[in-house]
Amino acid sequence: MSAHLSENAYGKSRVRVTKVQRDAAAGRHDLFEFDVAIQLRGAFDECYTAGDNSGVLPTDTMRNTVYALAAKTGITSPEQFALLLADHFVAHEQIPHATSVRIDLRADRWKRIHDEARREHPWAFINGGRELRTCTVEQGRDRPRVLLSAGIDDLLLIKTTDSAFVDFVRDEYTTLPDAQDRIFASAVRATWRYAESAADSDWNDCFETARDAMIRTFAAHKSLAVQHTLYAMGEAALAACGAIDEIEIWMPNQHRVPFDLRPLGLENRNEVCVTTSEPFGLIGGTIRRT
Amino acid sequence: MSAHLSENAYGKSRVRVTKVQRDAAAGRHDLFEFDVAIQLRGAFDECYTAGDNSGVLPTDTMRNTVYALAAKTGITSPEQFALLLADHFVAHEQIPHATSVRIDLRADRWKRIHDEARREHPWAFINGGRELRTCTVEQGRDRPRVLLSAGIDDLLLIKTTDSAFVDFVRDEYTTLPDAQDRIFASAVRATWRYAESAADSDWNDCFETARDAMIRTFAAHKSLAVQHTLYAMGEAALAACGAIDEIEIWMPNQHRVPFDLRPLGLENRNEVCVTTSEPFGLIGGTIRRT
Amino acid sequence: MSAHLSENAYGKSRVRVTKVQRDAAAGRHDLFEFDVAIQLRGAFDECYTAGDNSGVLPTDTMRNTVYALAAKTGITSPEQFALLLADHFVAHEQIPHATSVRIDLRADRWKRIHDEARREHPWAFINGGRELRTCTVEQGRDRPRVLLSAGIDDLLLIKTTDSAFVDFVRDEYTTLPDAQDRIFASAVRATWRYAESAADSDWNDCFETARDAMIRTFAAHKSLAVQHTLYAMGEAALAACGAIDEIEIWMPNQHRVPFDLRPLGLENRNEVCVTTSEPFGLIGGTIRRT
Amino acid sequence: MSAHLSENAYGKSRVRVTKVQRDAAAGRHDLFEFDVAIQLRGAFDECYTAGDNSGVLPTDTMRNTVYALAAKTGITSPEQFALLLADHFVAHEQIPHATSVRIDLRADRWKRIHDEARREHPWAFINGGRELRTCTVEQGRDRPRVLLSAGIDDLLLIKTTDSAFVDFVRDEYTTLPDAQDRIFASAVRATWRYAESAADSDWNDCFETARDAMIRTFAAHKSLAVQHTLYAMGEAALAACGAIDEIEIWMPNQHRVPFDLRPLGLENRNEVCVTTSEPFGLIGGTIRRT
Repeated sequence: MSAHLSENAYGKSRVRVTKVQRDAAAGRHDLFEFDVAIQLRGAFDECYTAGDNSGVLPTDTMRNTVYALAAKTGITSPEQFALLLADHFVAHEQIPHATSVRIDLRADRWKRIHDEARREHPWAFINGGRELRTCTVEQGRDRPRVLLSAGIDDLLLIKTTDSAFVDFVRDEYTTLPDAQDRIFASAVRATWRYAESAADSDWNDCFETARDAMIRTFAAHKSLAVQHTLYAMGEAALAACGAIDEIEIWMPNQHRVPFDLRPLGLENRNEVCVTTSEPFGLIGGTIRRT
Repeated sequence: MSAHLSENAYGKSRVRVTKVQRDAAAGRHDLFEFDVAIQLRGAFDECYTAGDNSGVLPTDTMRNTVYALAAKTGITSPEQFALLLADHFVAHEQIPHATSVRIDLRADRWKRIHDEARREHPWAFINGGRELRTCTVEQGRDRPRVLLSAGIDDLLLIKTTDSAFVDFVRDEYTTLPDAQDRIFASAVRATWRYAESAADSDWNDCFETARDAMIRTFAAHKSLAVQHTLYAMGEAALAACGAIDEIEIWMPNQHRVPFDLRPLGLENRNEVCVTTSEPFGLIGGTIRRT
Repeated sequence: MSAHLSENAYGKSRVRVTKVQRDAAAGRHDLFEFDVAIQLRGAFDECYTAGDNSGVLPTDTMRNTVYALAAKTGITSPEQFALLLADHFVAHEQIPHATSVRIDLRADRWKRIHDEARREHPWAFINGGRELRTCTVEQGRDRPRVLLSAGIDDLLLIKTTDSAFVDFVRDEYTTLPDAQDRIFASAVRATWRYAESAADSDWNDCFETARDAMIRTFAAHKSLAVQHTLYAMGEAALAACGAIDEIEIWMPNQHRVPFDLRPLGLENRNEVCVTTSEPFGLIGGTIRRT
Repeated sequence: MSAHLSENAYGKSRVRVTKVQRDAAAGRHDLFEFDVAIQLRGAFDECYTAGDNSGVLPTDTMRNTVYALAAKTGITSPEQFALLLADHFVAHEQIPHATSVRIDLRADRWKRIHDEARREHPWAFINGGRELRTCTVEQGRDRPRVLLSAGIDDLLLIKTTDSAFVDFVRDEYTTLPDAQDRIFASAVRATWRYAESAADSDWNDCFETARDAMIRTFAAHKSLAVQHTLYAMGEAALAACGAIDEIEIWMPNQHRVPFDLRPLGLENRNEVCVTTSEPFGLIGGTIRRT
């Protein structure tokens, strides 16, 4: 038998870094917590086929590099730090055979604690939710174009009305009745691609703007299907932030199933549901600026 | 060989219920999502030793009961609903041999979405964090005293200064240096016991009051040890809410370990840490009103 | 307001250690992977109330101690290592105010890989399942009695017949029909207490013996209820291993719910079920040697 | 602003089905537990852009279909069941605008319990590990080629010697020393593509053959890098099963980090390590038959 290596990639995952940036004059700290994954691709075949590591930068070094660059740099956004890492590896003189690098970064969303007068605390924070801010950089050594996408993961939203699902296809296995008024819950994952012209100044603003647009559209939309609201949310994000070219959204339909109270001699006035984690509908769509 | 059943308990766990309560006049919905666990104790031995189910209320019926009572009742708080469930089972005529019941309830903390004018949306919500509001009822059939405790779980807090740990015991295996200024992060679990005189009206207020007191004390405290801050948080909760008799707090010390940059030729100005999940210190204390 | 510290405990959790023991003569390695938690109790109040750490052994030192004792000791069982750790802390000269220590240990169950001739590989292992072997030591400084319990967690078992549940209590909320033949699945957690006379030589044998007895009883039992099988499994463990005084077993009833195929025009011959994780029945019992 | 839907997909995830197949003559049961995900693609735009569901088969119906087909069919392998589901949806007369379907299936690996005489129990099973058997079918309505891949996920392997990592690239951020003898632990995910000529009869045999080949190669290999062993495992799988055209393997390097005992006055004879979950190296490669 004869075989060959047709693809390869390697790197370090779950490199978790905490960076505190102190503004001594203002007596205020900024806090960043990132979970970074790095993957290199290129002509690393000899390591696979012959155990020759002479071209292999250890993944332990990749880890060290994350901490080193965090120390040497003032961090302004996840995107800026991910681009910095990508630049470092793609320009690395000792691994010219690395043809591309991918950086995936997930950022916690710590929020400042407020005191009784609603003032922000300068250095104490509370976790703002399960949601994570994400970004990805893909950069090739010989390709000038850097692909930068950003987004949000696990944004939990629920609404208790203004959601219907009726007049769908029915086949021999369909038992679902029309629902004129149902609960709609989801954990939104959205990933958008920035236009090449987008600059550092845009990323934090754009993140908050796109996030707000999606949340408010979810709340206000008269939903006729998860797909319907997903599309409206994507359109709203594009409308809110001009630096976004395209947005991909995945929305699980986290069903709240009305509990059948009739066998118990009771009526369910569309008030009592089973909260479920599985199975779930999974709806995806990509909306592109025309 | 001879053996006997010395203890027994049974029930249903992870009964998840969603309840929507609509105020038609105000056009406003309240949303409750509870995860309920029920455990009965009593003279159920025949089921274990002989497979005789004639005294066993099925756990499936316990599940149904959660949905039935949610439908029949206006919910005002987790505590009120847990007490209602405990009352139901402890007074159940067909299982007089059930001597006690325990209800554990965990409530999601959905927050209302705000519109651009900062007004609360009447029926759309966003998840407010990983934290859960909890309560436990323990009720005996022949004991008039109902034990009611409430609390919070997974309240994530972090501060980037005002935390030290110095002058501790050193033995042959100690390598930890004194830390004058370290990051302090935790996922607080607090459980408090209400005084017998506490009434329905107290529970929601007291929860928010105790939670705020703990969060603000965490932020403001000059911490000399996790223990030190834990005690101050407990004291603050007791001071803030008179209906609480006693509070038990567990605080993992979620270490942020300064990364040693010296081998990389760099200096760590107490800015760059490894974010860790394990191992973690685990500190507990119970503070009681004197 | 006046308050005081009524209870306290502190320690380190999730200390994960890998120990390789090489038998050079036989060319064979033993592998232990333990997850250790340590908790001390005693007169540590000054740390809580005044931030005075002069009596506090750092949890970082506890972590170091696990690795130090793992290096200094030949490990023969989880129980032996947990007892060694408890002895160390309860006899620690610099913390005489520590009145008791608790060690919780969870061990992975790596199994040797077999070659084509079914011979055991001397140093390569495959994970044997989700199940963990557990033990707990509780030791007081002034109490001669050491409490040692051991057990198993997450032992996944399923049988597709010989399980019924009929003739139970029915009330207004009962909808469950009698089941003459149902699937029975569980993730068994069993914890047994060793008699004081039990010695090192017993622990490994007794673990395997008790585990086998429970598994084979689960398989062979004509189950009339989860409780019924739980009791039989406990009895079997006591019968199989004389060093066990008492066994506590918790068995979730991981329901396989027959799917109602009638609306689809099909019949379910007790063959097709929904695999569920929640809700689940949770059945517990303690069986004691008489 | 103008936008359009450039991609879409929808379906149901986490459809969990348990199927018991009874051989009455032999008094023996087979047990299948599958977790199925279904995704359709096609001209579903009107649902997104206008809330028009007239072309949408509900995801609830997809769920029902899994149970219906499980009831109507004798299951022989995950692959056979996934192909059956794909065929159903891609040939569905009421959704001719669905251009392709993807089925992802994950199967639990229950093993028969053995009695004391080492005989297999006919209907009682124990979980064989964390590992899952997986398969994926991608089928287009107008494309005759069905893409079928299969594999394994979370296959936990560890070896305590015969693993080195030396002579790698060193840069300014490298601190890792050469390791002549280290522990090598991984949770292997392998996915292979079957040749078009592979038939039903091959899938179960090939799964076991490829799995065994990878496990035994892991055990026997003199590893000079994770990459090196990964390639050898892929080659071995291709050699062992002729129906496999190509195999993609991802191996996290689950580091066991030698604990530095020198500050404790002890020596680490390469015996005591910290068991870590993060960060981890992540190594991937695709090996193709030439």
